[in-house]
This record gives sequence, C-alpha cells and structure tokens, in this order.
Amino acid sequence: MLKLLGFPASNYYNMVKMALMEKGAEYEDVRVYSGSSDEFLAKSAMGKVPALETSQGSLSETSVILDYIEDTVEGPSFYPADPYERARARELVKFSELYLELPARRCFGEAFFGTGPVSQEVKDSVRPVIEKGCAAIKRRGSFSPYLAGNEITYADMVFLHSFPMAQGVAKIVFDWDLFEDLPEAAALLELLNERPTVKTIVADTAEGMKAFRKNYGMKD
Amino acid sequence: MLKLLGFPASNYYNMVKMALMEKGAEYEDVRVYSGSSDEFLAKSAMGKVPALETSQGSLSETSVILDYIEDTVEGPSFYPADPYERARARELVKFSELYLELPARRCFGEAFFGTGPVSQEVKDSVRPVIEKGCAAIKRRGSFSPYLAGNEITYADMVFLHSFPMAQGVAKIVFDWDLFEDLPEAAALLELLNERPTVKTIVADTAEGMKAFRKNYGMKD
Repeated sequence: MLKLLGFPASNYYNMVKMALMEKGAEYEDVRVYSGSSDEFLAKSAMGKVPALETSQGSLSETSVILDYIEDTVEGPSFYPADPYERARARELVKFSELYLELPARRCFGEAFFGTGPVSQEVKDSVRPVIEKGCAAIKRRGSFSPYLAGNEITYADMVFLHSFPMAQGVAKIVFDWDLFEDLPEAAALLELLNERPTVKTIVADTAEGMKAFRKNYGMKD
Repeated sequence: MLKLLGFPASNYYNMVKMALMEKGAEYEDVRVYSGSSDEFLAKSAMGKVPALETSQGSLSETSVILDYIEDTVEGPSFYPADPYERARARELVKFSELYLELPARRCFGEAFFGTGPVSQEVKDSVRPVIEKGCAAIKRRGSFSPYLAGNEITYADMVFLHSFPMAQGVAKIVFDWDLFEDLPEAAALLELLNERPTVKTIVADTAEGMKAFRKNYGMKD
C-alpha cells in the first residue's frame, strides 16, 4: 500500500493527500516532519515533506508525486485528456508553485511563525513575483468554474493550498489584498472548500497544528 | 508547425531546443526576448522565455513544455516507460530546477552580468540550497551513464543546462568547486557535450551571446 509521509500543517502534504483522497485511494498516513536524518533523506532526498513510499521506492516533490498518482492510481483522472489542455493545467500548477507559494514562503517567518521581520530586500523581490503570478493565473485560468476548465484538476488542488498562503503573506506583510488582483479566486476557493475531502483536510490541519508547532519549537 | 520562442543565451530555451532537436522535430525558431508587452504575455503569461506556440495555443514553463513535447511529438521517448522510473526522472528534473538553477539565478547579477555584488543575506540563503541540491542529485541520480539510468532523459537535458550555471555561481561568488560535491557530474557533462545536438546549441549560444547582451544593455 502507498504510504504518505508528512504532517497536516504542511500545505504540500495536503495537496498530495487531497489527490489521494479524491482518487479514492487506499494509503497509509505516516506522520513525519521534515528533517535531515539519513533515514529520512533516503526517502526524501531534500529532507522535505511530503514523500510517497511505493512498492518500488520513495518519491519526493509534490508535482512529481501528483503525476505519479495520476499515472498509477485508479479512480477519476485529474488532468484533461487532451495533451494541450493537460499542459495548460500543468502550467497552472507551476504558476501556483513558483509564483505564489515559493515567493510567499520566503515571508512565512514574519507572516506566520513569529520569527521576526524579513528584510526589505526580500520583500522587494517577493512582491513583484506574486503580482505577476496572480496576473498570469488570471490570464491563463478558466475559472469555469475550475481553474483549468469545467472539471477539477491538480491545478485546483495546488492553487487551493498555495493561494491562501500567498494571500496571508500579502495581507500581513504588505497590507495588500490579493483578492483584488484575482477576484476570481474567491468563488473557486468557496467551491473547493465545499468538497468532503477538503473539509476533512481542514479539520485534520486544525487538529495537527499543535503537534506541528510543538515539533518545530514554536509557541502555541 | 511548432514555434519555439526564445533566444540562445537562455539556458531554459536551450533545454527545450535540445528536446526538440533530439526528437528530430521540425520547428520554427523565433527570436524573442523576455518582456512584458501584452502581445508577449498572451504567449507566455509570466513574460519569460521559452514559450512554445502550438496549433492550439501557446505554452510556457520549461518542464511543462518538455512534458508536452513528450506527449505529442514523434521520435524517441525521453522518459522511462515505467511510471516509478518516470517519476524518478521527473524528480531529478525538479531537483536541478529548484535546487541548482533557481538559487544560482539569484546570484547571476554578480556572477555573470556585472551588476554588482548580491547581499550577504542572499548568499547565505543560496549556498545551502545548492549544497542540498547537489547532495540530493548525488543520492538519487544513477549516472549509469545518464542521470536517470542507461538512456538519456529530460533530466539530463535540464541538468546539462542547470549545473554549469550553478557551478559558475559557486566558483565566482563562493570560491567553491561544485565538482567536489558532485564529481559524477564531470563524466556526464562530457558525455552530453559529445552529442551533435549539444554541439549545435553551444555554437548557437556563442553566436547569440552578443545580441543577447545588446538586447539587455550589457557590455560586451
């Protein structure tokens, strides 16, 4: 059986968890925090979560795991069948990852973890990337009603767990409302949040937050 | 016919160009520099090169374009057929992209473009990522003789155009020899550099460098 390694406060873990749940896959949920022990690096070479243990070995990197799930796990497909439309969905995955999540992550310390302000240099490099990322998603997204068309795809699962992080960073660090840049996001998030899988993930995340903060030595 | 938009001094453009050439694809090479005109953003929503124009519309993001080429262009396959091995190749693509190319890129100004030194803060955040990236590629790469096994894959095409940039940054900015971290890279690069496609790309890049520097207002 597939084993998903990670913890519920990780938005990347939640993307993969959502994909597995939406597929209706059986999997074992193994609580692991990121780290650099030899044992964990053998499963996730950058020491990051999530990792997926398969009968052939482990895999890391969320988008890689999502593609692997699509290729191997039975259940509904979460990429369009047409190769161009599939590429467009993958492009939207990439936009959320590189231009919302990753730049926002550089400000997580100030926004979420109470580890003090990030430098002006970092802020000056983060904000324009998120601005362009929102513009790119607005330009390429369908929002009809899902990001890549009338069916849910991995692009929605990644956006659902990336945009709110970027939105939180924008609000706290820049006093900037990302919904003004991308008003289409509101209805999409609302639609996705109605899904049973997402309700489970939200509840699990709330429950897992205390253990997460304790593991990383953060205050409650 | 497919149109590849970009310029030969771009290592991302060269990854896609190599894939098209290795496939034996017919394509039109259209010289475009990155930019933010509405006309270009309609083709590449982040304003980046490369972009690929297809009969159904344009695509951006190198790894997305590589997957699209694999899905639609005839010729040899550059992913393993086995889903786990394919995922492992994709993981190696991602490692080169996120943990060699992108962190190194933050120091390109100091290393290659003569735009002055980057801050200590940036240096302190870049170096450990590249260190971990090399360790991850060492751990997960096969080098037998190619990165993901005994056949060339997209992982090699991305590594070939990412590692030397990280290696140049390491040498110039950190006085650090990346070949000591990843000695396996030397034989792999040598093997790849023998390919006719790569010889063409290297020659085109040398020839295109002057136009590139002129376009971006850099000194020769």
